Amino acid sequence: MGNSFGKLFTISTWGESHGGGIGVVVDGCPPGLPLSEYDIQPDLDRRRPGQSDITTQRKESDTISIISGIFEGKTLGTPIAMTIPNRDARPEAYAEMKDKYRPSHADFTYQAKYGIRDHEGGGRSSARETAGRVAAGAIARKILALAANVEIAAYVEQVHDISMPPIDTDTEADNLPTREQIDANSVRCPHPTTAEKMITRIKKMQAIGDSVGGQILCRVRNLPVGLGEPVFDRLEADLAKAMLSLPATKGFEIGSGFAGTLQTGSQHNDPFETRDGKIRTRTNNSGGVQGGISNGEELYFRIAFKPTATILTKQKTITTEGDETELIGRGRHDPCVVPRAVPIVEAMTALVLLDHHLRHQAQNKAFRFD
Amino acid sequence: MGNSFGKLFTISTWGESHGGGIGVVVDGCPPGLPLSEYDIQPDLDRRRPGQSDITTQRKESDTISIISGIFEGKTLGTPIAMTIPNRDARPEAYAEMKDKYRPSHADFTYQAKYGIRDHEGGGRSSARETAGRVAAGAIARKILALAANVEIAAYVEQVHDISMPPIDTDTEADNLPTREQIDANSVRCPHPTTAEKMITRIKKMQAIGDSVGGQILCRVRNLPVGLGEPVFDRLEADLAKAMLSLPATKGFEIGSGFAGTLQTGSQHNDPFETRDGKIRTRTNNSGGVQGGISNGEELYFRIAFKPTATILTKQKTITTEGDETELIGRGRHDPCVVPRAVPIVEAMTALVLLDHHLRHQAQNKAFRFD
Amino acid sequence: MGNSFGKLFTISTWGESHGGGIGVVVDGCPPGLPLSEYDIQPDLDRRRPGQSDITTQRKESDTISIISGIFEGKTLGTPIAMTIPNRDARPEAYAEMKDKYRPSHADFTYQAKYGIRDHEGGGRSSARETAGRVAAGAIARKILALAANVEIAAYVEQVHDISMPPIDTDTEADNLPTREQIDANSVRCPHPTTAEKMITRIKKMQAIGDSVGGQILCRVRNLPVGLGEPVFDRLEADLAKAMLSLPATKGFEIGSGFAGTLQTGSQHNDPFETRDGKIRTRTNNSGGVQGGISNGEELYFRIAFKPTATILTKQKTITTEGDETELIGRGRHDPCVVPRAVPIVEAMTALVLLDHHLRHQAQNKAFRFD
Amino acid sequence: MGNSFGKLFTISTWGESHGGGIGVVVDGCPPGLPLSEYDIQPDLDRRRPGQSDITTQRKESDTISIISGIFEGKTLGTPIAMTIPNRDARPEAYAEMKDKYRPSHADFTYQAKYGIRDHEGGGRSSARETAGRVAAGAIARKILALAANVEIAAYVEQVHDISMPPIDTDTEADNLPTREQIDANSVRCPHPTTAEKMITRIKKMQAIGDSVGGQILCRVRNLPVGLGEPVFDRLEADLAKAMLSLPATKGFEIGSGFAGTLQTGSQHNDPFETRDGKIRTRTNNSGGVQGGISNGEELYFRIAFKPTATILTKQKTITTEGDETELIGRGRHDPCVVPRAVPIVEAMTALVLLDHHLRHQAQNKAFRFD
Repeated sequence: MGNSFGKLFTISTWGESHGGGIGVVVDGCPPGLPLSEYDIQPDLDRRRPGQSDITTQRKESDTISIISGIFEGKTLGTPIAMTIPNRDARPEAYAEMKDKYRPSHADFTYQAKYGIRDHEGGGRSSARETAGRVAAGAIARKILALAANVEIAAYVEQVHDISMPPIDTDTEADNLPTREQIDANSVRCPHPTTAEKMITRIKKMQAIGDSVGGQILCRVRNLPVGLGEPVFDRLEADLAKAMLSLPATKGFEIGSGFAGTLQTGSQHNDPFETRDGKIRTRTNNSGGVQGGISNGEELYFRIAFKPTATILTKQKTITTEGDETELIGRGRHDPCVVPRAVPIVEAMTALVLLDHHLRHQAQNKAFRFD
Repeated sequence: MGNSFGKLFTISTWGESHGGGIGVVVDGCPPGLPLSEYDIQPDLDRRRPGQSDITTQRKESDTISIISGIFEGKTLGTPIAMTIPNRDARPEAYAEMKDKYRPSHADFTYQAKYGIRDHEGGGRSSARETAGRVAAGAIARKILALAANVEIAAYVEQVHDISMPPIDTDTEADNLPTREQIDANSVRCPHPTTAEKMITRIKKMQAIGDSVGGQILCRVRNLPVGLGEPVFDRLEADLAKAMLSLPATKGFEIGSGFAGTLQTGSQHNDPFETRDGKIRTRTNNSGGVQGGISNGEELYFRIAFKPTATILTKQKTITTEGDETELIGRGRHDPCVVPRAVPIVEAMTALVLLDHHLRHQAQNKAFRFD
Repeated sequence: MGNSFGKLFTISTWGESHGGGIGVVVDGCPPGLPLSEYDIQPDLDRRRPGQSDITTQRKESDTISIISGIFEGKTLGTPIAMTIPNRDARPEAYAEMKDKYRPSHADFTYQAKYGIRDHEGGGRSSARETAGRVAAGAIARKILALAANVEIAAYVEQVHDISMPPIDTDTEADNLPTREQIDANSVRCPHPTTAEKMITRIKKMQAIGDSVGGQILCRVRNLPVGLGEPVFDRLEADLAKAMLSLPATKGFEIGSGFAGTLQTGSQHNDPFETRDGKIRTRTNNSGGVQGGISNGEELYFRIAFKPTATILTKQKTITTEGDETELIGRGRHDPCVVPRAVPIVEAMTALVLLDHHLRHQAQNKAFRFD
Repeated sequence: MGNSFGKLFTISTWGESHGGGIGVVVDGCPPGLPLSEYDIQPDLDRRRPGQSDITTQRKESDTISIISGIFEGKTLGTPIAMTIPNRDARPEAYAEMKDKYRPSHADFTYQAKYGIRDHEGGGRSSARETAGRVAAGAIARKILALAANVEIAAYVEQVHDISMPPIDTDTEADNLPTREQIDANSVRCPHPTTAEKMITRIKKMQAIGDSVGGQILCRVRNLPVGLGEPVFDRLEADLAKAMLSLPATKGFEIGSGFAGTLQTGSQHNDPFETRDGKIRTRTNNSGGVQGGISNGEELYFRIAFKPTATILTKQKTITTEGDETELIGRGRHDPCVVPRAVPIVEAMTALVLLDHHLRHQAQNKAFRFD
């Protein structure tokens, strides 16, 4: 259970890290959308392993195949099945994990929950699963861009204790960085001097066999007003779920977030004004959402990623029998997952936004009683 | 849409702040559970307005009635419908809001989304809706306590910039505070000297017509291993959604949270050990969840609440026609929502945990193929 | 579980036959719809007990109250909660059922499933639950009528072995009977001479303490083309589920139904033609649905209702302890449920059609990629 | 939308008749079940085209591949993805259908709904999609058999106007036919002399380019008491939906069905008795379900299939432009779909029963409050 996401634009992912491949089925895609692998592969290339010297060296091209749902270059409105093969699986690197639980991994909990576990590369708990999300998210993003010119830009704001200068969260004070600016360096931080420091830190950790975490900021422009369903399916609630469903995430905040607790109401409230003929807010501590519904301002939120659990130094742990032992991580790993998480965050954001767009249309636009 | 929560233990809330009352329907409750209003009212009393001098003075007893699903003192397994009347509604206090959008409230977004809005007390966007969640959560908590001795304790850790001393998040280092300790003061902080400072601060803000926010810590003991569904319905994902679905929340973090991004992997990983014959972790940066599944350690997470949007000082805003105007908050309000949010956080936690418990049982315990 | 219906226009019913009342919550209603109890009560009046001398004599006015979701006479887009009190409950009439299982009732299966049972009036298994469906269905029908002029007419075609003359199912050959024509007699058969015979038969059965079943035909005109979701949520699949979810139903057929199995393909196929500028079929064996999707022709289907299980003659049965005993039905009952089932069938039809209309809009109308 | 089925044991099918293949993802399978392609292929072989001289001659081996969810021969509790290639696609045979609507097919409704259509072999509307259901159903049936010895036997009871002698639906009066008996002839009727007549009729229709329909009876033994969720998700409601979701179905009836409307209550009621220490009914007009919940008796229901829409005689129809034209069916088709529908009916039955078994366990067995 739990392998599907979305109410109207629904994705179901499948596959283990070292099994017969991974994939995703998308149900609910509007018909008539021009779509091919060329729309999807670029996003997967941003997520794939081996893309730079600060990511895992597993060699996977992550080449996507669309198997169904397309006819003569356009979506049919039927399920879009997509698969990615596992090519560079090295199960032998995980032989030791068969009998030992890696600290802060899912080895123990999967074993305890299911009574059985695929120890090769973490099986289903591997972040490899997220490739399917990225593929589906690429479709969602294309629709949002075509239909409403929605722009989504996520980037690395912090690695370990290195942060880029704060953005001005007031409405439209800052431009969204372009994908080119974000991808200009391997850490995906659009502030070049900070990026350099981040890369140095990651390489240093890599050299000593340790790892670091960090923080991603995701910003969305041109979002229509009215997305989000009170009371349980608030836009920020579904975004929080989407982000906390990603491996290695430990926190989510929208708008002013945790720092907002340090303000008073008179400081925090976003006054309304009319600007360019539209109802806007002067500040944007709300982060683009009020009462769970988008208000037309920039939507922005942050996600905390813990340091990678797989490290190459000796750690104490236990065997599956409960005996004390030691473990040295082997195999290939990311010393910091945050750069590769950027396209995944964007994909999940697109999926949440499109699903809410469809829900909003269904209830509020299908009928008019004026 | 969006007024139901939970897959197997499902709640559906309804009602507006100043309408004919509010309520909730619970579907999926196991049969045979002894249940009456006496199990539920105490939790509602912790949430109700007017309970202390630092909460809104709206006079609502929030007396719950169970209308269905109970026979001779036990649950039937059929839907449990519960209602709470609105007694102290004062719609006249909201006359001004009919034509003005309150800053950082849901007035504008509801109007934009639905093309119609109940301006009295915020209508459906009012936190009054959460009473239904608390009632349903009381049932979930009773089941969890009876079935597995699960203990849930939420409390206020921070108000504005006043924080209580940090707990030691290492496994079992700290006891859970009792409900008596938490409710010993009106701000629901179990650290008495900090509580005193918090109350002083809230009263000061109240005096000048301003408001403050804060932070709640929720801790759960005795949670069975194995709750949580990879990949989208991870336990922390559903908790994050539950918490961000509460009014005024801006952030969620589990375990080490945002601070965990400042650690390295070797610092952050929780080593396994065998303790008292059980598989345990020495530290608990994971917060009780690994790979999206509970690992038997204490589950703990934090929620950020923004300062109350309704303040009694003059604010700039616009009319529904888009013209500039000013607004002075009237009516009754909480200068700080955090103390009353404590039982709501506990209720949502219980709902998520019970739902996942049922899902875990269904897939993993219904059949055995050994 | 299982007390909600619909994906986008969702209803959740609650309540037992002799408990604190019954009700329904509707989620997903489009905002801005003028709505009051006056729109709903007429449908409930057609379902309520005691409406004629061939129905149960339980005296219930079934007066509906709308508690939430309406503001100044219009729907808010928030949940619409509605309740109906139980006034003429006579639990004492069911004392005997506490220890005996009524044949072909749900007494035994509820006890076996839940380990507990409300024996008064059948508790949750009572057809009294359907009042909530009728209330919700009245809203759905109002929307369908306003938005697309959809007309739904169900009526009794057969009671015991008495049938009215067959309609000509070819496209538009027959007019839909009006509600006035259907309600012109107490059995709701628009063919007066047949109706008379049916009423005579029912009264005869009533006189000897026995019961009969029958068949309802439901016909829908002006349904838009395109409703229904392949492959599992075909329009006829969801209609079949809706109808078989009604108490006492044993069968469902659409279009040619079981009789269609006696035709050859060349007889059964409905040739296309262009008529009045529209694509139409010459015959309508398909019953308005092809490939699970409405084709614009009249939608028509039949439902089989078994004879009422409660009869006033002595029957063999067993006690809850498994001992043989006898039982004479007491209390008030319908000698034939079919006339009162007419508004319920119409309500469920409206709910299915509206839900599919919303789903169709969401996927196929929200975006255009031309 | 609409391509998933089941709440706890969920299947999602994908694929078009002549596209890159078809498949299914199963989510919610209990872990630890021994499973391989050998458990699934036999059911697919019963459904595949070209299996006898009375089925379509399309040559598809329908060889299944399990790609995920299995480790060392056992299910992991993670999604099971399965694919089947399309090998003998002949899109050129459908060139004419590009511009013409086949009568009583889904061509027109798909075009109208989606604005786009895969005309090759009917695309998504092809019965080829059901192969995924059969594969998933084989897993469900294996679980039901292992866990509760549940036996499911469907067979052809009627073709055109040729029927086998009626079974005695009274409890256990008749044995279930074995799969060997059912598959002893190509029409899957376990009454040999009737089967012979059916085959002759089908061949005769085939010879003149026409087609016939028929009726399948599905019978289930050893079903546990308690499956089915009142009020909307009654067991018969979900079975009806499952059956009406199959291509070419026009009707469903359970137990006495439409014929039951001709009985009186005193004839139709099933008296309870204690037999072999268990609570049983003497007759079984209920068909194994009372109040929507299984009562432990044989579950039996019938499904009506219309004659195949594709016939090889000239038919009147229109072009996609609305102009009158004629069409002669080409390509390969089944002169009667009923024999190949037998394994599909069994698969859908298994899926419904397992899903309800899991739901029943979750609500009623996870907790005990005695």
